[in-house]
Amino acid sequence: MSEFNYQGLFAERAPITTRGANRHAKYDFAVAYPDPDTLPLTGLVEALSTALEREGRDLAYYPVSAGYPPLRELVADKLRRDRQMDVTADDIILTSGSGEAINMLIQAMTDPGDVLLTEEYVYLGTMRQMRLWGANVVGVKCDDDGIIPEALDETIRAQEAAGRRVKFLYTIPTFQNPLGWTATLERRQRMLEVCQSHGVPILEDDCYVDLRFEGEDVTSISSMDDSGQVLYTGSMSKIIAPGVRMGYLVAPEMVRERALSFKSGGVNQFAALAIEEYLRNHMYDHIDEENQALRAKRDAMLAALGEHFGNRATWSKPEGGLYLWLTMPEGTDLAGFQDQSFSEGVGYYSGSMFSPEGNGRHMARLCFGHPTAQTVSDGIAELAAIFERNGIFQGK
Amino acid sequence: MSEFNYQGLFAERAPITTRGANRHAKYDFAVAYPDPDTLPLTGLVEALSTALEREGRDLAYYPVSAGYPPLRELVADKLRRDRQMDVTADDIILTSGSGEAINMLIQAMTDPGDVLLTEEYVYLGTMRQMRLWGANVVGVKCDDDGIIPEALDETIRAQEAAGRRVKFLYTIPTFQNPLGWTATLERRQRMLEVCQSHGVPILEDDCYVDLRFEGEDVTSISSMDDSGQVLYTGSMSKIIAPGVRMGYLVAPEMVRERALSFKSGGVNQFAALAIEEYLRNHMYDHIDEENQALRAKRDAMLAALGEHFGNRATWSKPEGGLYLWLTMPEGTDLAGFQDQSFSEGVGYYSGSMFSPEGNGRHMARLCFGHPTAQTVSDGIAELAAIFERNGIFQGK
Repeated sequence: MSEFNYQGLFAERAPITTRGANRHAKYDFAVAYPDPDTLPLTGLVEALSTALEREGRDLAYYPVSAGYPPLRELVADKLRRDRQMDVTADDIILTSGSGEAINMLIQAMTDPGDVLLTEEYVYLGTMRQMRLWGANVVGVKCDDDGIIPEALDETIRAQEAAGRRVKFLYTIPTFQNPLGWTATLERRQRMLEVCQSHGVPILEDDCYVDLRFEGEDVTSISSMDDSGQVLYTGSMSKIIAPGVRMGYLVAPEMVRERALSFKSGGVNQFAALAIEEYLRNHMYDHIDEENQALRAKRDAMLAALGEHFGNRATWSKPEGGLYLWLTMPEGTDLAGFQDQSFSEGVGYYSGSMFSPEGNGRHMARLCFGHPTAQTVSDGIAELAAIFERNGIFQGK
Repeated sequence: MSEFNYQGLFAERAPITTRGANRHAKYDFAVAYPDPDTLPLTGLVEALSTALEREGRDLAYYPVSAGYPPLRELVADKLRRDRQMDVTADDIILTSGSGEAINMLIQAMTDPGDVLLTEEYVYLGTMRQMRLWGANVVGVKCDDDGIIPEALDETIRAQEAAGRRVKFLYTIPTFQNPLGWTATLERRQRMLEVCQSHGVPILEDDCYVDLRFEGEDVTSISSMDDSGQVLYTGSMSKIIAPGVRMGYLVAPEMVRERALSFKSGGVNQFAALAIEEYLRNHMYDHIDEENQALRAKRDAMLAALGEHFGNRATWSKPEGGLYLWLTMPEGTDLAGFQDQSFSEGVGYYSGSMFSPEGNGRHMARLCFGHPTAQTVSDGIAELAAIFERNGIFQGK
């Protein structure tokens, strides 16, 4: 069989993406999956059945590009109530996960060479998409209270001085992925002020905000702005299931009509019907149940780290979300050891996978959402044992 | 409220897309919707319930990027059996409708200025995507047997002589949208030969192939090639429901790994589970039922056209699919009259909407999938009445 040769036929910008099957270590702290035992499976089937009975014949139509109107209404209600945002269903586009919303904005706003700002550590899939469209991804220094406003101001000035256009700041202010902190109210205000002074829009990614099991909500950055400078995305993937791929974008009309060009058809109407019916009846009960499960897992991880890592590392104490951030002494090579740890039974992602500049080789994100609390405990003990026998605690 | 000004922040390539709510005329022959009465709603809910019971916990994982393996197995089996293709599940990526598959390939293979070939009339959404990525869309002359091989050869030569690179030929050989014909076996062979002689890959879009209610299947172009030169896409949207947004791409590894970079996350796992379980048990029974309904509607449209249009127009007699192609005398302006017809109660899309060159103003696509047979009859009578009272039959 002579293989047709496609070399020379690909677009210049098209990179090679090889993604095999998702592999899972025995103890998988690498990928941010939610709790499988609180997935609302029965509830979703019942909701779908009810919704299809009511309006399933409309599945014969292609869905409107902004997505199922009743689900957009439900999202708008929720954002007004929970995030103090002044929005209606018309401001919202449903997307295939929040990932599609982010990708649409990247494509609508990035010419090659433009700068997109992120926190100093950022989800690798987002960074990959930004670079695919030619962006310079520039991380902004953070501390435990969020992005440092002075650093944000300096970074924007430096990029503009170098003749580059800063197109937007992408931020996850609540349960930041991967760092786990939540930006304080004051920091949110100052971030917004700095961005206002430079005319730089903000894309606020609030996809983890419902996963709070401790402490008080901090209001959205979007709610502090009435000029349309803050774009906003969220997700149902975290409160229903990642597999449902349902997120949304909130943006002014002139942004929506650009972003829509980069949308891959309507979202799954089948999932939209089920989710709307389910959430309308069960949203907060379900979130409470899920968060109780997550809290127990976080507690198990904190306790196990205290027991097995003691003063040989530091780690964040997140009030919500699916992961914490582990910091080992400078010089420890968690990045280089990641594959070995996986093959010995414990998966994690090192900090350098999340850094635009490749920093954080001595840091790692540990996700506690998917395993049981007992498995979290056992896995942290195992990770300590693996580190011990491979000399990682000695800074190798 | 001072509105933040995004002008100057958008990417140069980002067009404005305004899509309102989908409007439907009283008699809607414009959009290619399937029959709502044979949507397998109860069957899908039952299938989802069964599938979630079996493996719903896996919804907590993000789906693998190629999509739910059992559904890829099912598609591979079907393509081997029905389309004589030599494929396995590993050759297949599930996509959000066949539209996403097409978009992924356009993005992976098009640099600005490259030529993409299509039939002389092509689905407007596909043409829009091609142009979004900078392609020159060039239509190739067709007759009732499909693309004319000599025209294909000449077109490729002319484009290459002009210094342009032809990246692929996009074709819907079965129940072509909008023309409705099916390319003959001989034409398929000759199209492939012409493309082979020029080193131009083919993207075969077979998304309507299951909707045959008359005549004999013609085998896929893909089955005639063992070099990987023919890429292939299909869809479950036509045999389940458009709202489920489930399609697939079959391509060699080196193409898949480029195309994957332009995929918006995994497909909806929730829909994939339901569809796999449903199709595994009911696929051919369901297709038969759907096609009996479609045949009755096509018959109603042919009869009504004969009665009310008589010798004042010609039209195709499709053996499957969702539409036929109406041709009025040259000079009749169906394009200019489209909005007026809509407001008087009958929707259609004029030929010029499907033509890269804006040809076909005296032609129109009429879809018979969604209305009942009685409504099809009434609607064609009404269309003739509208044409009559507006002087369209007099060539206005």
